[in-house]
Amino acid sequence: MPLVTISVPDHRPVPWRKKVADIVNAAVIETLDFPPDDRYQLIQTLPAEQIELQDRHCDAVVLQLTMRAGRTSRAKQAFYRRVVDDLARQADVDPASVMIVITENADADWSFGHGEAQFLATQQHVG
Amino acid sequence: MPLVTISVPDHRPVPWRKKVADIVNAAVIETLDFPPDDRYQLIQTLPAEQIELQDRHCDAVVLQLTMRAGRTSRAKQAFYRRVVDDLARQADVDPASVMIVITENADADWSFGHGEAQFLATQQHVG
Amino acid sequence: MPLVTISVPDHRPVPWRKKVADIVNAAVIETLDFPPDDRYQLIQTLPAEQIELQDRHCDAVVLQLTMRAGRTSRAKQAFYRRVVDDLARQADVDPASVMIVITENADADWSFGHGEAQFLATQQHVG
Repeated sequence: MPLVTISVPDHRPVPWRKKVADIVNAAVIETLDFPPDDRYQLIQTLPAEQIELQDRHCDAVVLQLTMRAGRTSRAKQAFYRRVVDDLARQADVDPASVMIVITENADADWSFGHGEAQFLATQQHVG
Repeated sequence: MPLVTISVPDHRPVPWRKKVADIVNAAVIETLDFPPDDRYQLIQTLPAEQIELQDRHCDAVVLQLTMRAGRTSRAKQAFYRRVVDDLARQADVDPASVMIVITENADADWSFGHGEAQFLATQQHVG
Repeated sequence: MPLVTISVPDHRPVPWRKKVADIVNAAVIETLDFPPDDRYQLIQTLPAEQIELQDRHCDAVVLQLTMRAGRTSRAKQAFYRRVVDDLARQADVDPASVMIVITENADADWSFGHGEAQFLATQQHVG
């Protein structure tokens, strides 16, 4: 956990996409209290004009996180600040152009491989 | 708010995509009670055969909306009717081929830029 | 119902994508109790390196299901086992590399065509 879909404009080079994904992953793990190896990401590249954030087209980044309910508002706010700050400093992303949306679900809604519902099957902390 | 993902077949021309996105945006704002500048869209183009709506392949349009809980069933129904009607009349989309799915979340689940959780930080109406 | 987004690496051939989608659809219908014609899928192809599942890059498959609340944990677990087993046996997908995430919503959140909210309008079982 969580599953993070990262939507970025396709005019940025491939190494930049990887850098953005790394930054997002570090912020998720360090602010939202996930295990260090909990990286689950889909990186979707779109023509810049197919990402519409009001009038912020050119370099908009949209993050959609799906995760189990339970993280506090304070933790979410820490994540927002951290990821936007790091994207600005390390990947040349305008802080005004980062949109983040979280959707929550429950224990039974996750399978991380092998067809198991890890949160139900073992009751141990998987992510 | 909301974040709308619009999935369309890639055989339609670029200006059509833009028209569809404009129509969806106007319907969202006018039926679901969002501010006029509340446009947040991802436009995903897929080969027609990668959009499976029962047997309706060729020109299917799928709209996925994520928004805060609170809109009434009546407002959602008004949105469905309006957007399908406008897509049919203005963008040559078969009403049978428009699927719409809404997912709801909460105040803390949104950041519209600058790493802030606007619905928490200010308590003012952002979207 | 449900809407299933299937994310797969783009280095696999087109017929394989179709096979994966068919397998997923059969498993959804047979384990989660949906009508036989309830097929609603988006198939998203991504470069393998844009699907990050810990260290399982090459052939990862990510399934995201949105459906109405109500299916039991037991039914979800049956779906996870079935789909991963069938993907392994019939489509050469490593069971370790299949991630599945479910998000639930409500009756008013669905329109399957014609601008109607079928679960509200008719109270009959559409999907």
